[in-house]
Amino acid sequence: KSAETLSSQYGLSVFLAGLLLMFAWAVHAAGLHKSHLLSYLITLMLVQLLWMLWYVCRSYTQRRLIQEKDTHAGARWLRCGITLFAMITLIMDSFKIGYFIGFSNCLSATEGIFPVTHAVHTLLQVYFLWCHAKDIIQSFKTLERFGVIHSVFTNLLLWTNGVLTESKHQLNEHKERLIMLGFGNITIVLDDHAPQCNCSTTTLCSIFSQGIYYLYPFNIEYHILASTMLYVLWKNIGRKVEHHQQHKIPFKFHGITIGTIFGLTVLTSTIAIVVVYLIQIGRSKIKSELALTMFYIYAISVLTLMCTAGIVALLIYRLEDRSLDNSKNPARKLDADLLVGTASGSWLLSWGSILAIICAQDHPQYTWYNLPYSILVIIEKYIQNLFIIESIHQEQEKVNDDIKTLRIVTISRENTLSLTPSFKEIYNGTVDADSGELPYLFNRNVCVRESSSNGSLEEDKSQVFSPVIHSTSDFSLYSSNSVANNKRRILKNIAAFLFLCNLSLWIPPAFGCRPVYDNGLEEIVFGFEPWIIVVNLAMPFSIFYRMHSAASLFEVSCKT
Amino acid sequence: KSAETLSSQYGLSVFLAGLLLMFAWAVHAAGLHKSHLLSYLITLMLVQLLWMLWYVCRSYTQRRLIQEKDTHAGARWLRCGITLFAMITLIMDSFKIGYFIGFSNCLSATEGIFPVTHAVHTLLQVYFLWCHAKDIIQSFKTLERFGVIHSVFTNLLLWTNGVLTESKHQLNEHKERLIMLGFGNITIVLDDHAPQCNCSTTTLCSIFSQGIYYLYPFNIEYHILASTMLYVLWKNIGRKVEHHQQHKIPFKFHGITIGTIFGLTVLTSTIAIVVVYLIQIGRSKIKSELALTMFYIYAISVLTLMCTAGIVALLIYRLEDRSLDNSKNPARKLDADLLVGTASGSWLLSWGSILAIICAQDHPQYTWYNLPYSILVIIEKYIQNLFIIESIHQEQEKVNDDIKTLRIVTISRENTLSLTPSFKEIYNGTVDADSGELPYLFNRNVCVRESSSNGSLEEDKSQVFSPVIHSTSDFSLYSSNSVANNKRRILKNIAAFLFLCNLSLWIPPAFGCRPVYDNGLEEIVFGFEPWIIVVNLAMPFSIFYRMHSAASLFEVSCKT
Repeated sequence: KSAETLSSQYGLSVFLAGLLLMFAWAVHAAGLHKSHLLSYLITLMLVQLLWMLWYVCRSYTQRRLIQEKDTHAGARWLRCGITLFAMITLIMDSFKIGYFIGFSNCLSATEGIFPVTHAVHTLLQVYFLWCHAKDIIQSFKTLERFGVIHSVFTNLLLWTNGVLTESKHQLNEHKERLIMLGFGNITIVLDDHAPQCNCSTTTLCSIFSQGIYYLYPFNIEYHILASTMLYVLWKNIGRKVEHHQQHKIPFKFHGITIGTIFGLTVLTSTIAIVVVYLIQIGRSKIKSELALTMFYIYAISVLTLMCTAGIVALLIYRLEDRSLDNSKNPARKLDADLLVGTASGSWLLSWGSILAIICAQDHPQYTWYNLPYSILVIIEKYIQNLFIIESIHQEQEKVNDDIKTLRIVTISRENTLSLTPSFKEIYNGTVDADSGELPYLFNRNVCVRESSSNGSLEEDKSQVFSPVIHSTSDFSLYSSNSVANNKRRILKNIAAFLFLCNLSLWIPPAFGCRPVYDNGLEEIVFGFEPWIIVVNLAMPFSIFYRMHSAASLFEVSCKT
Repeated sequence: KSAETLSSQYGLSVFLAGLLLMFAWAVHAAGLHKSHLLSYLITLMLVQLLWMLWYVCRSYTQRRLIQEKDTHAGARWLRCGITLFAMITLIMDSFKIGYFIGFSNCLSATEGIFPVTHAVHTLLQVYFLWCHAKDIIQSFKTLERFGVIHSVFTNLLLWTNGVLTESKHQLNEHKERLIMLGFGNITIVLDDHAPQCNCSTTTLCSIFSQGIYYLYPFNIEYHILASTMLYVLWKNIGRKVEHHQQHKIPFKFHGITIGTIFGLTVLTSTIAIVVVYLIQIGRSKIKSELALTMFYIYAISVLTLMCTAGIVALLIYRLEDRSLDNSKNPARKLDADLLVGTASGSWLLSWGSILAIICAQDHPQYTWYNLPYSILVIIEKYIQNLFIIESIHQEQEKVNDDIKTLRIVTISRENTLSLTPSFKEIYNGTVDADSGELPYLFNRNVCVRESSSNGSLEEDKSQVFSPVIHSTSDFSLYSSNSVANNKRRILKNIAAFLFLCNLSLWIPPAFGCRPVYDNGLEEIVFGFEPWIIVVNLAMPFSIFYRMHSAASLFEVSCKT
């Protein structure tokens, strides 16, 4: 416990110092340059590299010592996702190195060292997470805690750094648009726009500098995912887990066709809308307003669909009244907390928009679309969070129930009374250990599933002892089961649909389609500077929310 | 679980909307007046009033239904503290009403309604917390959850409102000082300073308006304490507790004289220093610098003392290697999280000062004192948090160990071999239920205490079976016990000393002695606006940290 406090306080201190450095850089503090910030980050990454090397080597030599694994942590698709993001991050790093070489005469050396270190750091960290994300560390606890928490906060700082650079870039673009539209009355200063010297090969340099900003969103997601995985690892240090084997549930495309089709439609149309928006916005006043109106109408319809889907899913859960799995589990608790916590970011923005609409003196026509849009954003996240949190608390027991019921039904079908003792043994929970493969095996023969475990067990017991009423009981089982199957299929489709919708809604803010900037209403009511500060603080969380809820919904759709 | 998510999301939404209203008011958003903000707060308070009335009535009529109590929640001294703060808050409300009557022709009606509602709200809430803070609600869970979380966030919003008003006042004072010192180069606008009309009775009005700001710190503490108590209540809804009786441990003044004397010395000298500081600062440049130097030197010496005390206490804990009480407990977990979380506020400020000193071009002599001061603030909170968290995790088991040992030693003294079976029974843990009163009973006859339970049990076993070596064994028990007693006395003194020190260190920032403003160095490095924003965000947490750690240390010194 005291090691936990020690390490978390150390991590917080490192993080706060980094945050302040970034803040100081962002407000152009006297006597502080970008190179100071970058050297701080490089130092942190090098320390983490050393620790990870030490850990990997040690666990390689003492391979048999670390055996316990937390099966909930670091799911395979999560590791796949992080690898994908890391690969794009590596591309970004190479772009940065290229950019540095182009401008090498006027950039400080740290700007070149940073991407190199970052690339090495990314490679080793992905390897580390791939191999060790599930570890439950039981030895050298204090040192391990420091190492892991250091890694968590290093990644968080790199995330903050990415967010800050991205925000500055977005703000510059926004200011350029304002200049183009002729709003000269706001004092506009472009910030860190380009180096002072010329590039040796101009075309390559502009490709690099343009390309970097399209790759930033992936870099940002990579770091935040890495830090959540490392945080779960930290929470797991020294934990005692009850050993229950988890069933590997592969992703099955089958049965979610409708949800996927709807979702893909939303995804493609979102991409189209974003492209149109980015081309139209800032050209002229009328074109900007048209683009905004288009975006709002589109977003309102998508959000309405998502709300409806979420409400249907919640109603289904309400109908089948099931007890929840309340066991302690760091990975799941973090998921739920992150969902609610990061949703706050976009709630803040939405409340800001609503307030601005209420307070504003004059309302151009397109601003009215903003009101239902903002309200829907709040409601949609509210419902979706409820749905996800209920789902992730439900799935574990569901599978177990099914297995028990299946086994019992199978046995009762054989109708040999001599099997009764073995049935009792099964009911007492001894199946749990080896039942991982069973459901699929039995699934082909017996297509019977049952939702309410208690009720079915009563029925099954009566079946075992009175084979006379077998046929009628079987029929009722079958019909109630097909209802449950339908319910499950609907839930699966809804989860898949919501997953793709969240992925789509991640795209606009991540790639610079931010109506909260271009709308202009909030800026007038709150003032330019205060509103920009609020947006820049809340937007990263709002973006992360979409990616995180997409990840959670993917899990839900796999496991339902 | 889903009710938990539902209600927490509702609470967050209410809170965020309120936050944005305040933010909009603070940045002078167009079309938004103070009356809007106040009416929002009044509505929230009225809703909470209705809910509390309903709850109190229902629990009065169905008194036998709610029986379970969480003994850790809402300790008596906490409730006494909240009552004290509430009384001062009531005085503040009456001042506000008086102020409103004086300026009634130019203030909106909401400014009069607000203090009246607030006073009623305070009265009922204190009654509610006094009677129901320990409740574990098991019925109507969803409605209760909504009610409690609504109360939590209403109090948090009232806290934010208090903090905001206080910050504005401090900022105005700071700006006045700057004007007086002749720093005209910063554009200074006084904010919400005085109403536009004249007061009917000028002297009374100025007393009221001056007095309000001296009472604000207590109002702020009241709301944050209330919201933490309500949060624990919310966390406890539907919880199942293992019924273990808690020993009421009264506060004993005896044995902590040295710590108290040192602490009171610190307290009085702090008050003296603050008074001198507030008189000197802003008079002239030289006087200001002298006041700052005096404050820094004084704070450095106090913090050094506190660090030393904390390290000694931690060393004592390290020497007696005891297993910790790791059972789940919302009240305790919240305490620990709040300590680390709110300490971050002042860590942020300290890192800011350190960064400013490193980056600044020229260093007047007094700024150098700022560096050790900031570093010591970081280290002191680090050590103190460790000490408090270890203490609150330790106390429960400590008492139990003592009781077991005492009983066993008492029995072994009677030297009858027939008692062996009953000794075994005691060792198996059956004493726990009724042992609450025992230590004091036995304490008078047998003055034997033992720190390491395992070692003494071995000894006792040998005692029981071989009465021959009784006398020597008794001697060793006695000597090792006096060491443990000494250790405990040292810990008690340290806790008392740190308690009074934290109370002292709460005074300077709460009553306007804020060197981070007057120092000037950070403002030059970061710029005036950015640094003011950082200070206004971080300072409330820093102030709350002192009060909260004082409360925790009081608990520690009572229970050690």
